[in-house]
Amino acid sequence: MRAQDDTDAPGGMAPVIENAGGQSPVLLVCEHASNAMPAPWGNLGLTAEQTRAHIAWDPGALGLARGLARRLDATLIHAPVSRLIYDCNRAPDMAGAMPARSEVHDIPGNAAITPAERLARTKAVYLPWANGLHNLIAARIAGGLRPVVVTIHSFTPVYHGQPRAVEFGIIHDADPALARAILAAARGQTGLDAQLNEPYSAADDVTHTLRLHATPYGLQNAMLEIRNDLIATPQAETAMADCLALVLSAALTEMRTAA
Amino acid sequence: MRAQDDTDAPGGMAPVIENAGGQSPVLLVCEHASNAMPAPWGNLGLTAEQTRAHIAWDPGALGLARGLARRLDATLIHAPVSRLIYDCNRAPDMAGAMPARSEVHDIPGNAAITPAERLARTKAVYLPWANGLHNLIAARIAGGLRPVVVTIHSFTPVYHGQPRAVEFGIIHDADPALARAILAAARGQTGLDAQLNEPYSAADDVTHTLRLHATPYGLQNAMLEIRNDLIATPQAETAMADCLALVLSAALTEMRTAA
Repeated sequence: MRAQDDTDAPGGMAPVIENAGGQSPVLLVCEHASNAMPAPWGNLGLTAEQTRAHIAWDPGALGLARGLARRLDATLIHAPVSRLIYDCNRAPDMAGAMPARSEVHDIPGNAAITPAERLARTKAVYLPWANGLHNLIAARIAGGLRPVVVTIHSFTPVYHGQPRAVEFGIIHDADPALARAILAAARGQTGLDAQLNEPYSAADDVTHTLRLHATPYGLQNAMLEIRNDLIATPQAETAMADCLALVLSAALTEMRTAA
Repeated sequence: MRAQDDTDAPGGMAPVIENAGGQSPVLLVCEHASNAMPAPWGNLGLTAEQTRAHIAWDPGALGLARGLARRLDATLIHAPVSRLIYDCNRAPDMAGAMPARSEVHDIPGNAAITPAERLARTKAVYLPWANGLHNLIAARIAGGLRPVVVTIHSFTPVYHGQPRAVEFGIIHDADPALARAILAAARGQTGLDAQLNEPYSAADDVTHTLRLHATPYGLQNAMLEIRNDLIATPQAETAMADCLALVLSAALTEMRTAA
């Protein structure tokens, strides 16, 4: 048998690519861009309020990523489905891929997922996402431009009742070089409380995208986490995009100088 | 734009999957199974003798892999195009992906590859291969079966005029556990001259498949290299498959016992 059919995705599940011809080496990735819960899954038994909360997506992350894409002339790829249907930053056997519980919320539609349903969601959402991102990366490498993979996330300011002081987390996988350069630029050029590997780190299995797509090709990479109260309005997203575009540009310049 | 179209392959370029329902955890991978040089590339300016030589493929590897697949009830995936068109065990920016020279042979059709041609071959051969293999692996993981990735290769007994004594090389990437278990079983159960990381190692960039497909998911993996004079006839392939099926089974049992 030939292998191609497995890469087909139902309508609407394929990743979305914006500014495909962007000239920056930066490739922006937003796994948690959307809280959409399309058929056949629907709202998984959640309330409307829950589907708008941080458990379903990373509020503000897509707006920020689009702002960065425009300022840097970078290509952006984002997932069109809620992380509660399938979290594209998790391997299919991780508990967080189709979580039965997120923070203090039970997810009824994920309470008793059968192996067949797990496989169906993997084929419908994860594989088109991962292969679509791989296509972008490999094509750039083939064309002589090694992309710099930067994933854009937001995190909730209060988690399990505990406020978080960190405002800007920079998380690395096997290669910390770009994350450290971004941290140094953020501390030098902004007033943000910027921290390395907070509020999570690779040990929490949050770097699947970096591990699968950047590390094997030896690409520079980092995962950026912005506290979502700092990007809660379009105006705030714009201001943060202005700020982080300068930070990223400074970090890339530093990486080139150090190389 | 949606990302799916890039995964389409021209007819005949998609990987071939055999025994898709195999019950073994072992997933056999044969990147250099074929010396086919289809249109639009043709024979790259090589003689018929050169297209039959080890530079174009791994002679005997597919027959051995098929023998192992039958004995283990394992799924097998193999590439349908010569490694001289695109070597599916190389990233698109590696010199060996579309080599201008292999051992003592110039490859005229690869002497002056343009960036556009490099991109075209990557899209036509490498991406369908890599995404097809990824589909197999991720679907198995989603279904609760973590595959054991074993790649099957052969090497020439004389390279640059130097004879090679090693008969069976077992090569690892980041995780040496399975390779060491296979080495121990081969030394204990066969008369083969078996060596770890010979005639090549990960430092020679020969573990791209393991690095891209097994390491990020934490899957057990190893690359097997058989000297091709030992699998030069169907009878020899059969005998080697008998031998290595027992070696692999013993190694997997040892891994389960040690876990």
